[in-house]
Amino acid sequence: MPQIIIQYTANLDRETDMNALCSALAETMCEVHDDAGVPVFPVGGIRVMAYPAPYFAVADNKGDYAFVYLNLRVGKGRSDATLKRAGDALLMRAKAHFQPIFMQRHIGLTLQIDEGREAFDAKHSNLHPMFQKN
Amino acid sequence: MPQIIIQYTANLDRETDMNALCSALAETMCEVHDDAGVPVFPVGGIRVMAYPAPYFAVADNKGDYAFVYLNLRVGKGRSDATLKRAGDALLMRAKAHFQPIFMQRHIGLTLQIDEGREAFDAKHSNLHPMFQKN
Amino acid sequence: MPQIIIQYTANLDRETDMNALCSALAETMCEVHDDAGVPVFPVGGIRVMAYPAPYFAVADNKGDYAFVYLNLRVGKGRSDATLKRAGDALLMRAKAHFQPIFMQRHIGLTLQIDEGREAFDAKHSNLHPMFQKN
Repeated sequence: MPQIIIQYTANLDRETDMNALCSALAETMCEVHDDAGVPVFPVGGIRVMAYPAPYFAVADNKGDYAFVYLNLRVGKGRSDATLKRAGDALLMRAKAHFQPIFMQRHIGLTLQIDEGREAFDAKHSNLHPMFQKN
Repeated sequence: MPQIIIQYTANLDRETDMNALCSALAETMCEVHDDAGVPVFPVGGIRVMAYPAPYFAVADNKGDYAFVYLNLRVGKGRSDATLKRAGDALLMRAKAHFQPIFMQRHIGLTLQIDEGREAFDAKHSNLHPMFQKN
Repeated sequence: MPQIIIQYTANLDRETDMNALCSALAETMCEVHDDAGVPVFPVGGIRVMAYPAPYFAVADNKGDYAFVYLNLRVGKGRSDATLKRAGDALLMRAKAHFQPIFMQRHIGLTLQIDEGREAFDAKHSNLHPMFQKN
């Protein structure tokens, strides 16, 4: 954690660069700081994965509609204000990415943050140590 | 929201039309009404996305088994009775879609509805306004 | 339920056999027993599905990093001790699977177990009866 999963209608694959979106959102997660100036997310735990859905139906399914759902799952313990700050920053970045598309077609974009309530949580990583400050 | 994500074993791709299932479930979501005759879901927020899993194992993994998991995530605030009505309607529609497959192979189908407990929720859409009544 | 969804960066597809991982984890789920020697999961309800993400960004996105997220969703009612036993067994199996990769590249692996809080739950299956003991 923190992890963003993006699920979207595959008709967008012809119209936008989803690797660029993943990269932009990971960068935003690296940059978000709380009121005390402390980074909200540990760099070594950040990941963004995007999945085009090959089959889909949106709204009344009577037009060529597109949809993008972004879900950020975070560990427990951050304040509502901190999560709002992160959510606002990510939404702004996603809106900027999709702005040309919003001018051209019917599209919906939703971003939600879930605080995990996992009953078990374990990890094994050689990524975290690379980003730990001495 | 409301959003249905379908995750299924890719061995079904040769046997059924998943776009037809997405379309049928979106239609069902449009049609569900509560006891007072009010539509349960706003048309502009409906989406269904289906993802075949290229890698999978089902049960004891000793046969050519298939599985379909349907997850409907909805916003907070609907009654249990309303969610049951929606769940029953969607399950009936999904069962009807897969009926020929149930006659031919080993397959499991599960439908669950989760009420989101998101800590942050924001959207940006030019879909909703198209479906708002004046 | 129980259901494991694996979401991972697609750069791993060239380096490992994800069907073997799905198979190993399904086998582990079949084998886990609680303190009283009773199987923790019903065989007919077990499934594992793995999804490579074609687009992704990990950590600071400045290297060829990989990530694997394993999420086990279970029904309500098992004890914390039972879930920890299942989680430990699954993590050990996943670590063994990826051990050669951990020697070769930067990779993170996270396993979480979520106890479902679904508002509606229904299934239709011709799998369960095959595995029910008389």
